[in-house]
Amino acid sequence: MLNVGVVGATGYAGEELITVLLGHPQVRITNICAEIDKPQAISEIFPKFKNRLDLICTEPDIKEIVNKSDLVFLALPHTVSMGIAPALLEAGKKVIDLSADYRFKDKEVYEKFYKARHKDKKHLVEAVYGLPELYREKIKNAQLIANPGCYPTVSILALAPVTAFILMDSDSIIIDAKSGFSGAGRKSVEEFLFSEIEGDFKAYKVNTHQHIPEINQQLSKLAGKKLQVTFVPHLLPVCRGILETIYLKRAKGAKAAKAQDLINLYRKFYKKEPFVKIRDEGDFPRLKNVIGTNFCEIGIYEDKEKMIIIAAIDNLLKGASGQAVQNMNIMYKFPEYMGLV
Amino acid sequence: MLNVGVVGATGYAGEELITVLLGHPQVRITNICAEIDKPQAISEIFPKFKNRLDLICTEPDIKEIVNKSDLVFLALPHTVSMGIAPALLEAGKKVIDLSADYRFKDKEVYEKFYKARHKDKKHLVEAVYGLPELYREKIKNAQLIANPGCYPTVSILALAPVTAFILMDSDSIIIDAKSGFSGAGRKSVEEFLFSEIEGDFKAYKVNTHQHIPEINQQLSKLAGKKLQVTFVPHLLPVCRGILETIYLKRAKGAKAAKAQDLINLYRKFYKKEPFVKIRDEGDFPRLKNVIGTNFCEIGIYEDKEKMIIIAAIDNLLKGASGQAVQNMNIMYKFPEYMGLV
Amino acid sequence: MLNVGVVGATGYAGEELITVLLGHPQVRITNICAEIDKPQAISEIFPKFKNRLDLICTEPDIKEIVNKSDLVFLALPHTVSMGIAPALLEAGKKVIDLSADYRFKDKEVYEKFYKARHKDKKHLVEAVYGLPELYREKIKNAQLIANPGCYPTVSILALAPVTAFILMDSDSIIIDAKSGFSGAGRKSVEEFLFSEIEGDFKAYKVNTHQHIPEINQQLSKLAGKKLQVTFVPHLLPVCRGILETIYLKRAKGAKAAKAQDLINLYRKFYKKEPFVKIRDEGDFPRLKNVIGTNFCEIGIYEDKEKMIIIAAIDNLLKGASGQAVQNMNIMYKFPEYMGLV
Amino acid sequence: MLNVGVVGATGYAGEELITVLLGHPQVRITNICAEIDKPQAISEIFPKFKNRLDLICTEPDIKEIVNKSDLVFLALPHTVSMGIAPALLEAGKKVIDLSADYRFKDKEVYEKFYKARHKDKKHLVEAVYGLPELYREKIKNAQLIANPGCYPTVSILALAPVTAFILMDSDSIIIDAKSGFSGAGRKSVEEFLFSEIEGDFKAYKVNTHQHIPEINQQLSKLAGKKLQVTFVPHLLPVCRGILETIYLKRAKGAKAAKAQDLINLYRKFYKKEPFVKIRDEGDFPRLKNVIGTNFCEIGIYEDKEKMIIIAAIDNLLKGASGQAVQNMNIMYKFPEYMGLV
Repeated sequence: MLNVGVVGATGYAGEELITVLLGHPQVRITNICAEIDKPQAISEIFPKFKNRLDLICTEPDIKEIVNKSDLVFLALPHTVSMGIAPALLEAGKKVIDLSADYRFKDKEVYEKFYKARHKDKKHLVEAVYGLPELYREKIKNAQLIANPGCYPTVSILALAPVTAFILMDSDSIIIDAKSGFSGAGRKSVEEFLFSEIEGDFKAYKVNTHQHIPEINQQLSKLAGKKLQVTFVPHLLPVCRGILETIYLKRAKGAKAAKAQDLINLYRKFYKKEPFVKIRDEGDFPRLKNVIGTNFCEIGIYEDKEKMIIIAAIDNLLKGASGQAVQNMNIMYKFPEYMGLV
Repeated sequence: MLNVGVVGATGYAGEELITVLLGHPQVRITNICAEIDKPQAISEIFPKFKNRLDLICTEPDIKEIVNKSDLVFLALPHTVSMGIAPALLEAGKKVIDLSADYRFKDKEVYEKFYKARHKDKKHLVEAVYGLPELYREKIKNAQLIANPGCYPTVSILALAPVTAFILMDSDSIIIDAKSGFSGAGRKSVEEFLFSEIEGDFKAYKVNTHQHIPEINQQLSKLAGKKLQVTFVPHLLPVCRGILETIYLKRAKGAKAAKAQDLINLYRKFYKKEPFVKIRDEGDFPRLKNVIGTNFCEIGIYEDKEKMIIIAAIDNLLKGASGQAVQNMNIMYKFPEYMGLV
Repeated sequence: MLNVGVVGATGYAGEELITVLLGHPQVRITNICAEIDKPQAISEIFPKFKNRLDLICTEPDIKEIVNKSDLVFLALPHTVSMGIAPALLEAGKKVIDLSADYRFKDKEVYEKFYKARHKDKKHLVEAVYGLPELYREKIKNAQLIANPGCYPTVSILALAPVTAFILMDSDSIIIDAKSGFSGAGRKSVEEFLFSEIEGDFKAYKVNTHQHIPEINQQLSKLAGKKLQVTFVPHLLPVCRGILETIYLKRAKGAKAAKAQDLINLYRKFYKKEPFVKIRDEGDFPRLKNVIGTNFCEIGIYEDKEKMIIIAAIDNLLKGASGQAVQNMNIMYKFPEYMGLV
Repeated sequence: MLNVGVVGATGYAGEELITVLLGHPQVRITNICAEIDKPQAISEIFPKFKNRLDLICTEPDIKEIVNKSDLVFLALPHTVSMGIAPALLEAGKKVIDLSADYRFKDKEVYEKFYKARHKDKKHLVEAVYGLPELYREKIKNAQLIANPGCYPTVSILALAPVTAFILMDSDSIIIDAKSGFSGAGRKSVEEFLFSEIEGDFKAYKVNTHQHIPEINQQLSKLAGKKLQVTFVPHLLPVCRGILETIYLKRAKGAKAAKAQDLINLYRKFYKKEPFVKIRDEGDFPRLKNVIGTNFCEIGIYEDKEKMIIIAAIDNLLKGASGQAVQNMNIMYKFPEYMGLV
């Protein structure tokens, strides 16, 4: 049994992570922390864990975490993770960080978009970007995983095959993203109140969202040249799920292809992937198909000059905690789908 | 044109009140206040008022309010109203208070349930309880209206006819109430966040809600003896509306009546009321029929020993701002339905 | 008082139309029809009309309609309208048709996208496209109005200024549209059931929706050349409202403009329009601001090479019945905003 | 591995049953049937089963089912089950029937409430009512399980301890029940459309629901005398979950008890039950705590003369498919919680 700790247990990602880990046959949760006023049983904070997890949630205490855990998940706000990760890593522990703190190779980009100085350049270099579909080999031996953001996960999976083969005009990528509210986190602000959101729909952070540079970094690496996407996120009046509709213009050189050819290309690219499904022609993803699962579904439309790619994930699973567990499975040589649906 | 001021413009009731008043042909809003950090155009706070209401929302300034308004609506939290009302009343203004501050004849009851000392006993005595179906004559000449609470409005309307004729066992009244979230107010607390509430349903303040003594006070008065209801409120994952299912045991003395007899009794009782509808036998209210309106709908089921009464209102209209405007119409001799649907 | 008939009263648009007309001070509804098994009081079909509209809804009977109405609204399914409109027009009545039957000047386009033969070429020629912001003068004297589709209304309003001045690359228009479910109509099919849709979100009719040629027809006319948009509609788990996010590439010739310049251009273009609001820079529409109103709100983002335009309407009001009443107001010289919010 | 068949795979209960069975380590689904126009892959009907269940859903063929399965789940509409069950039972198969067909010992009651003649009196006698908390011993050796209805499951669990000890006035039981829409089944009728239900709430089948005699039968058995509950079900605008608020009057003879005493009594009664949780005093169930689980949560309020019991389950799990799997686990001596959360 692997002993794991969860730091940041009281947010949506932390809560979901505990739920997934409780169903994992090779894992024992030994340690639960969060920024919390006073220690409290996790089963009091989340009554659904009653009779299932008998641990007290405390303020993080590095020594305690080090003693009790082999692997530590950090489900903390951005900038908080890098205050805790170094001590864990130096004590020889493995760390999967769900924040943005270790996702950027270029710390200037991080500092610009997250408006904070980076305090741990050393581990930034060593961190492996935890998208198994692109970096499985590196993940196997990583000590520190930077678990991808929710929008980047679905954007990169949707675009990787066409980007790798540069089938589109590289200036043309437009991502129209729609996310459920759990993506915004458990923040007690007026604009997240039920009565404000029920029946509403809106765009936010129009082409300025902090996930844009993360998408650009990965796609540019795949394309071998600098790509810059247009990205408009919207908030759906649902709790979970992201669906993106992505518009591309066919590259001038690229020979015309039927939708079915593109579908075949995607299926080949993701042939061995347990969590990517490519839909048949004329058939597109919907949130209902992916919510509660670790799957990314992708549908493809194509005509003369343009391609439209529609992709969906559960933001709390493949977009956060499910992917974190998938990374853990790879690191510890458990079957990749263990504990995941 | 009647000049009115709205104090407490930024809550749900205040917002709805402005919306209703903007559609009222005999009223001009001259004054908008709220507890607010710095003055701000109401059309910035609520963009839907852009081009429709060109006023700055400020901290309440009694002198200013007195100068500009004939009638003042107070849509303030409990205990705040009684700090402002006296000065307005003494300046000769009429006041419709949507809080609980002037609803109780017995200030001990208020102090027990609202956990605060009452500071304005004088006006407590003069205040008229603004339920037009019971107190229309008094409302006509009132200077201070205590606008009823949302649950009490629907509970009292649903129960007044059977209570007045004491058709039920007086210990037997059970009110199972379900309300939309706007009833909870615009409070930025975790338990009101969209992701917490979507898909959820729960009871709260089980038989301890502060509206219970308000219901008891009015029903006891109608019955001519002390009544005490059992009352369990629940929160629906919708924004607006209250539906109550009320269970009664037939009084021992009362002769058996068919549902249709009871329906006839209710129709007679509410014969001249513009905003009470009694449904046909076998037909019951639903939220959709009353949301966006000032109506209270009532449906009646009856068999040998028990009666079940189901009633619904829009908590922000008949349960708050619509009723306040109905009271204003009565006070100023406008047609009672003016500006209301 | 203007006597109006409503044919097709039982769908969402018909229901909303009756609601709006009941609040219009210059109109009397004299006639209510629908495809219905047997005659039934409209207040039984929609209990919310009880005490407000005392009419029996029957199968349409042309003679009866002609006798009772000056103006007839047809809120019928596509292809049904053109079976009824000719007789009404020939009897000298004015007609506002909410279906697609008279929206296309080229009947081949209609026949291709609506998969039915057009049976009334004569009136197709005379019909005026009822978008007041573009065709107000023609609407004034029209006998037959083809009321625009919901997606076309918001798409055209959002694009008219940039299209008229050809500020964008004309191949580049991408419309990512999101609509509430009432747009799909009151059809009892499994995919519209509550339990299927709650918490779900999906694209449908990807780049093949029947509203595409309607948008293309109007934009091409404005641009003076053939334009073809990319259009992907999605279904939101809400009842009402459409929000579109539109992506444009700046035209090669067009000189770079700041977002504020574009906002100024839009404000000038829509200067006299009572129902179009252009938001300030950095501020964007949301459904909550337009639901229950006849407004179209537009927000604009711009940088070097691209423009993003976000626009929202209530699909049942500005996208259907509200716009129909706006057209009526223009035809009968009532104030254009009468009965509308 | 146990080979199981699912007949009635396309309804909500069938879909949920497949989902649960796919996660059960000791079960292999060998057979999927439904009333269906033509054979279709289950992964086409429910795309979420793609790559997880590779079976064709066909019309039920008894011989085929008998050949392939040891145990058959019938998730069929009432009256259809009893047309299929006898042949399976006579072929020696075990059957868990999720319909009402085998729940009543008195077939007259069934015939009255389900408006159909009962055609299989023989197996009616043998059937075991599949509520493990009351009938675990009988379930162990049963060949035919009548899986309880959703409302009866939560009502009986909430009332069993007080009923067994007759702590309440037996005429006083009032059950105010609220259910998500999946309980209504996958029926394409207008009143279940998303746009009808979003934001709505209503009572239905007021004190006439067909689950009432099922509740009465079980409670009467427990009490040793005839009990008759008052039962008003309501429809919540959510997909899943039932929460009931139950009102009781203390029995005249019963000695006054504190809420904590009652809580202790319930905890003792359900001491060994893996799926019943009694909340602490002052703490009550909410849907969020039970949705996605097989748990029933119960909270208790008590004062002088009355008791209020609030209980919640997921109608598709403990109220249908989860309980069916729990019964299977008992029948086959698997750990009772296997495959369930």
